Amino acid sequence: MSDRTDYLLTNAHLATMTEGSAGYGLRRGALAVRGGRIAEVLEQGAALPEDLPRRDLDGRLVTPALIDCHTHLVFGGNRAAEFEMRLNGASYEEVARAGGGIVSTVRATRSASAEVLVAGALPRLDALIAEGTGTVEIKSGYGLDLGTELAMLRAARALGRQRRVTVRTSFLGAHATPPEYKGRDDAYIDEVCIPALRAAHAEGLADAVDGFCEGIAFSPAQIERVFRVAAELGLPVKLHAEQLSHLGGTQLAARYGALSVDHVEYATEEDARALAASGSVAVILPGAFYTIRETQQPPIGHFRTHGVPMALATDCNPGSSPLSSLLLTMNMGCTLFRMTPAEALAGVTCHAAQALGLDDRGRIAPGLRADLAIWDVETPAELAYRIGFNPLNERLIGEL
Amino acid sequence: MSDRTDYLLTNAHLATMTEGSAGYGLRRGALAVRGGRIAEVLEQGAALPEDLPRRDLDGRLVTPALIDCHTHLVFGGNRAAEFEMRLNGASYEEVARAGGGIVSTVRATRSASAEVLVAGALPRLDALIAEGTGTVEIKSGYGLDLGTELAMLRAARALGRQRRVTVRTSFLGAHATPPEYKGRDDAYIDEVCIPALRAAHAEGLADAVDGFCEGIAFSPAQIERVFRVAAELGLPVKLHAEQLSHLGGTQLAARYGALSVDHVEYATEEDARALAASGSVAVILPGAFYTIRETQQPPIGHFRTHGVPMALATDCNPGSSPLSSLLLTMNMGCTLFRMTPAEALAGVTCHAAQALGLDDRGRIAPGLRADLAIWDVETPAELAYRIGFNPLNERLIGEL
Ligand SMILES: [Zn+2]
Ligand SMILES: [Zn+2]
Repeated sequence: MSDRTDYLLTNAHLATMTEGSAGYGLRRGALAVRGGRIAEVLEQGAALPEDLPRRDLDGRLVTPALIDCHTHLVFGGNRAAEFEMRLNGASYEEVARAGGGIVSTVRATRSASAEVLVAGALPRLDALIAEGTGTVEIKSGYGLDLGTELAMLRAARALGRQRRVTVRTSFLGAHATPPEYKGRDDAYIDEVCIPALRAAHAEGLADAVDGFCEGIAFSPAQIERVFRVAAELGLPVKLHAEQLSHLGGTQLAARYGALSVDHVEYATEEDARALAASGSVAVILPGAFYTIRETQQPPIGHFRTHGVPMALATDCNPGSSPLSSLLLTMNMGCTLFRMTPAEALAGVTCHAAQALGLDDRGRIAPGLRADLAIWDVETPAELAYRIGFNPLNERLIGEL
Repeated sequence: MSDRTDYLLTNAHLATMTEGSAGYGLRRGALAVRGGRIAEVLEQGAALPEDLPRRDLDGRLVTPALIDCHTHLVFGGNRAAEFEMRLNGASYEEVARAGGGIVSTVRATRSASAEVLVAGALPRLDALIAEGTGTVEIKSGYGLDLGTELAMLRAARALGRQRRVTVRTSFLGAHATPPEYKGRDDAYIDEVCIPALRAAHAEGLADAVDGFCEGIAFSPAQIERVFRVAAELGLPVKLHAEQLSHLGGTQLAARYGALSVDHVEYATEEDARALAASGSVAVILPGAFYTIRETQQPPIGHFRTHGVPMALATDCNPGSSPLSSLLLTMNMGCTLFRMTPAEALAGVTCHAAQALGLDDRGRIAPGLRADLAIWDVETPAELAYRIGFNPLNERLIGEL
């Protein structure tokens, strides 16, 4: 079935996600797929098309294929040694002296060949795919020089060719200042980040532009210089903002009509209003919250009140979130932030699609891509309820 | 290789776990297995036996097969609906009125056939096995009547026959008071729990005796009546103690020479001293801590100071820990409780074996069972570092 583009799923329990975050949009019936697109949702008892090969799902749940809208999937090395040092009591300074932190990932990424970057990311991508993921966003941001930033984005594109998955790229040159520009953040933005963005765009490597607005990264004013170039190039923006403190990145991103603002633990009700007005998605990243043992919760209640769509993503990265399971991310969203299971599923389907600017997936409705996941569960709540268990029966991807 | 009992693993990176919790006991070299038992650990450069079929591991890590020493793997139904109700804002009373809580699992377990109990547990067992687990403890405790308690233990034994895995059973009649004995805890202990324990023992169904000592369950005095029968029958004991409050179960269990005391968030330094004196293992269950959003941390420092061996287990159950990943449990032990990656690995190998009273596994040393896990990682810290990722290359089980 997985290679077909024309088929009929019968006896399906469909979570169509066509009712916003209020519910799952559950239907029992059949789903007709033609040319890799959803042709028709047929209620139980309706006459079924005769010309399509059928699969009886025996009541299994069908959801849109999952979407991971925020990852740093491509990087060199790993940070297990640093994880262990810290747990053995090493101070931040000792870890830094031993070459730890983001600098170690930058070093490993710069020294990795294109093949090594792709081969290193493939098991992580395969882990996502094994849970029914059909679309993955991948950021640059561990190169921090023109050549390596482009190499990371090329690796991301290569991953999309090696697996039956859609890869969307975000240029994240404004992730950190590299050692050779230490103390010269503005020079890094002007001399490296913006030229690399222009080069990435010229090569068609960047689907969006991202940044890290934080005390340990870049100020809103520095981020805005990158966003202006993005606007000039016609690229949508998104932003890592209000993760560790409130710097105002959310308001900045909203002014630039950002697709999403991500992390947002320290966002305020005013920020939620701004996101609602700009139509931006709040991307919630519980894996990083869990790993760094943050205690400030993202303002889920304000996002609900003001109708800000919430997505959930792994933030898969070697430091603050070495997480490669969207199902576990859903559980964390519910357990740590009291999101509902319906919000969690919307967070990895329809709202994740919106966070990537994709309107052709993330729901089950006529005309959309037939990117689907079939699950050995009876109710959609089971997807978020279990921890460390994968009930995927089959992933179906409409077209490449 | 996985069906063989005589072989040689060459170019292996062995975490022998023969140095207690201080380290991994790392060796590089070869491992000879004969008759399903570890015959010899050969240092790099040593002459290798010529008569054994070889597999070159290319430097891969080999650990003892993992051991999950605390699970409630056998049960009827699931509690996803209750999980969702709570997240949608239902009060404890509303959930109870809707038939939620442990009572719902008791009802579903009582009404399940033997086949349904086994079939329901198999996917959870398979999830553990897929991560290199070779030994799993399974408790009764959702029957709470003689027939269903025995049916649960028979299902646990059946699981051990259906998969290449060792199942160790614990009789947990003293888990909760069933609805028909509401307010008559003592009568339940005398009229149901103890007779069921004797019947389970007579049928060879109980490898150990467990209880739940807590305000919402049984008092130390009630548990002690069960432990006295266990002692009379020659069965080792273990106890769920000090999970939500400090009732003194740890001291009681230590007096009975318990194999383990489990949860222990509210245990004190005195309790740690008692466990050290009795040679009991502290079984840490981060999945339950995470799921119920507990904030009281188990006294890891006291356990270290007094030399109490610490195990880690999933506590896999449908309510407070629907978790079926020992790798994620290791990460939670490190992230939530600041255990070291070496402690985490000892917690699911040598110390988990000790918590089950098994001295023939959990380490890599001559004479022990060749229950092994081969991993696609370079260092053992990587096993605890990643979240929601399974790097198992192959699981090898010595003998059945
Ligand atoms: Zn990120
Ligand atoms: Zn338990």
